[in-house]
Amino acid sequence: MQKEVMETLQAMRDKKPLVHCITNLVVMQVNANVLLAGGASPLMAHAQEELDDIVKIINALVLNIGTLDKHTIASMNVAGDFANKYKKPVVLDPVGAGASRLRTETALSILRTVKPCIVRGNGSEIMALAGELGETKGVDSTKGSLEVMEQAKRLALNFHTVVSVSGETDMITDGTKTAYVRGGNPLMTLVTGIGCSATAMTGACMAVAKSPFVGAVSAMALFASAGEKAGRKCQGPGSFLSYFIDELYNADYADAAKRVTLN
Amino acid sequence: MQKEVMETLQAMRDKKPLVHCITNLVVMQVNANVLLAGGASPLMAHAQEELDDIVKIINALVLNIGTLDKHTIASMNVAGDFANKYKKPVVLDPVGAGASRLRTETALSILRTVKPCIVRGNGSEIMALAGELGETKGVDSTKGSLEVMEQAKRLALNFHTVVSVSGETDMITDGTKTAYVRGGNPLMTLVTGIGCSATAMTGACMAVAKSPFVGAVSAMALFASAGEKAGRKCQGPGSFLSYFIDELYNADYADAAKRVTLN
Amino acid sequence: MQKEVMETLQAMRDKKPLVHCITNLVVMQVNANVLLAGGASPLMAHAQEELDDIVKIINALVLNIGTLDKHTIASMNVAGDFANKYKKPVVLDPVGAGASRLRTETALSILRTVKPCIVRGNGSEIMALAGELGETKGVDSTKGSLEVMEQAKRLALNFHTVVSVSGETDMITDGTKTAYVRGGNPLMTLVTGIGCSATAMTGACMAVAKSPFVGAVSAMALFASAGEKAGRKCQGPGSFLSYFIDELYNADYADAAKRVTLN
Repeated sequence: MQKEVMETLQAMRDKKPLVHCITNLVVMQVNANVLLAGGASPLMAHAQEELDDIVKIINALVLNIGTLDKHTIASMNVAGDFANKYKKPVVLDPVGAGASRLRTETALSILRTVKPCIVRGNGSEIMALAGELGETKGVDSTKGSLEVMEQAKRLALNFHTVVSVSGETDMITDGTKTAYVRGGNPLMTLVTGIGCSATAMTGACMAVAKSPFVGAVSAMALFASAGEKAGRKCQGPGSFLSYFIDELYNADYADAAKRVTLN
Repeated sequence: MQKEVMETLQAMRDKKPLVHCITNLVVMQVNANVLLAGGASPLMAHAQEELDDIVKIINALVLNIGTLDKHTIASMNVAGDFANKYKKPVVLDPVGAGASRLRTETALSILRTVKPCIVRGNGSEIMALAGELGETKGVDSTKGSLEVMEQAKRLALNFHTVVSVSGETDMITDGTKTAYVRGGNPLMTLVTGIGCSATAMTGACMAVAKSPFVGAVSAMALFASAGEKAGRKCQGPGSFLSYFIDELYNADYADAAKRVTLN
Repeated sequence: MQKEVMETLQAMRDKKPLVHCITNLVVMQVNANVLLAGGASPLMAHAQEELDDIVKIINALVLNIGTLDKHTIASMNVAGDFANKYKKPVVLDPVGAGASRLRTETALSILRTVKPCIVRGNGSEIMALAGELGETKGVDSTKGSLEVMEQAKRLALNFHTVVSVSGETDMITDGTKTAYVRGGNPLMTLVTGIGCSATAMTGACMAVAKSPFVGAVSAMALFASAGEKAGRKCQGPGSFLSYFIDELYNADYADAAKRVTLN
């Protein structure tokens, strides 16, 4: 697995995949900068009139529901349909699932119709989506990592997708095999868009990886490595972001890969 | 007053208020990063379909008309109505009031119908709104701070709100009592979104303060302290922003509080 | 020419031109920060209801089609009409021209109807627009700089505009005379919004320059100087952006001017 992670991260820099993001308004800039630093090319476009042209030329589609409304939902659905037509891989970030019915239902609808090959979110978002599958055995109020992993597996199996959950230790599962990624820094939760950028990076890695699972793991490994190094240098979340992007650019793929364990 | 400021800033970090921003497209990222650095949680959402769910769970609502259009105005009105229904405090930033009739009238309409408990703007925005109340005695072309204070008091009394005016010395008034906050750095006017972020921070402090007046003062005191420290370290507006967010994160509440004088 | 560049850059700081940007959602923050650092004042506004008021008070209009949709296209057209009515200069950034028919056609439509006095883009965007004029002698697949210059001249002559093309060496042409600007750093292509910010800065310089040609050259010269200096100090694209904005603020106009050669 570690060799595959290193190969994927190198391939991202060599092939410069074009990553189309229909993402939230808060994180567009940081998503683009993270993709560029990692070696990929960002493209933001949401006008339905151009989605056919755009999706034809991209290597991955990233859907992020962070500041969704009826216009962006329509764009995400149209882009998702073209991605399926042109066989381009899709990753979904269900930002804020659980905070409103609109977010939960939009994420579930995309899971059902667009069929993304990866869903990347934090624990509470993944729990909210899994909770909608019924047959929950009572969501544990502490939301421990074991319970989150259990629910992530259910979600993965139910939708035949890879679920990537960020946390103190990141967990990536396809319902059968599970990888863990250790590292990072708590400041990553205090800079807006780091999670959404992990999703964008997941799209870039997915585009060049031998499987969505390897792509999802590779992106989190790169973030864990760069985040840990940036955390050692910074004096707070302001300087963290600047160091973090520098570390993505100067990435040490071996250091990233060694953070991964497979179960 | 200084003790109340320190308590408010500490309470913001302890309680992590959820601050819902319907704000302009230019400053979303910096607003979110500033809130996170100060200890609060940002939430951006504008779809009318989810505003009932969202406003139920938030601790404060921030309305900012910086890149308004008919869609965002409608969202602000709906969110404002829910905020009143659920008794959540609202702060308004009348960005660009005076630059167009649309901005001036939208700000006045929100003041009349949503009844925010704080309005935070710069001197020319506050003067533009107060000028609409009629009975101005001729706006002084120099817009000296005395004239601004006079108009801020009128605005506060007319709308039963707190008016917080940023400037070389910040002034916060409810029409009867007035607080002054000294500090900061001129570079704060050369980084986009610092003013709008002061409004977002005002929302976060308002959510945990014993009164809107104390909340408004606390936010400006924190900004004055962090801005002055960042200004000493930086080499220009680019590095200023990074240092400023670090200083908000590493805030010295006593240093913030001592910048406040009450009149 | 070098004297004119220095005078233009100084005039931008002295006169603080108000630059109205209808720009893409990814780069709004960095565009605003770049304008402020250079001495100009940014204003972002797209609501048709306020464009008459806004365009009356601005000194330049910047149209950028990076995340266009039917709403923003309509706003750009309305703002462009008011700019012509009130004799305010317009600059167009045809972001992504060639990537979709919508982008190519929107850019051409603005060229025909709004008649911007400057078009600023990268080589592939300029080639895409020139290719639409017909009579191309087969676009060279290597897109060498000679071919780009040839096409830039055709575009300039056809639309009676100045074409400013960023690249390893920037080229600015009105179809007859051509200026070259050397400097910068390859990291400028790895930070989102640097190109779009060059367009915004072009708008600010155009507002105070004795001709659009001088304005376009001055903006690129300032970027080449600040980019080269920031590139020497940074450790990657994250720190580059911070240093770059500082260097714009601390600009050395003589160093900027000496990078320009006229042909």
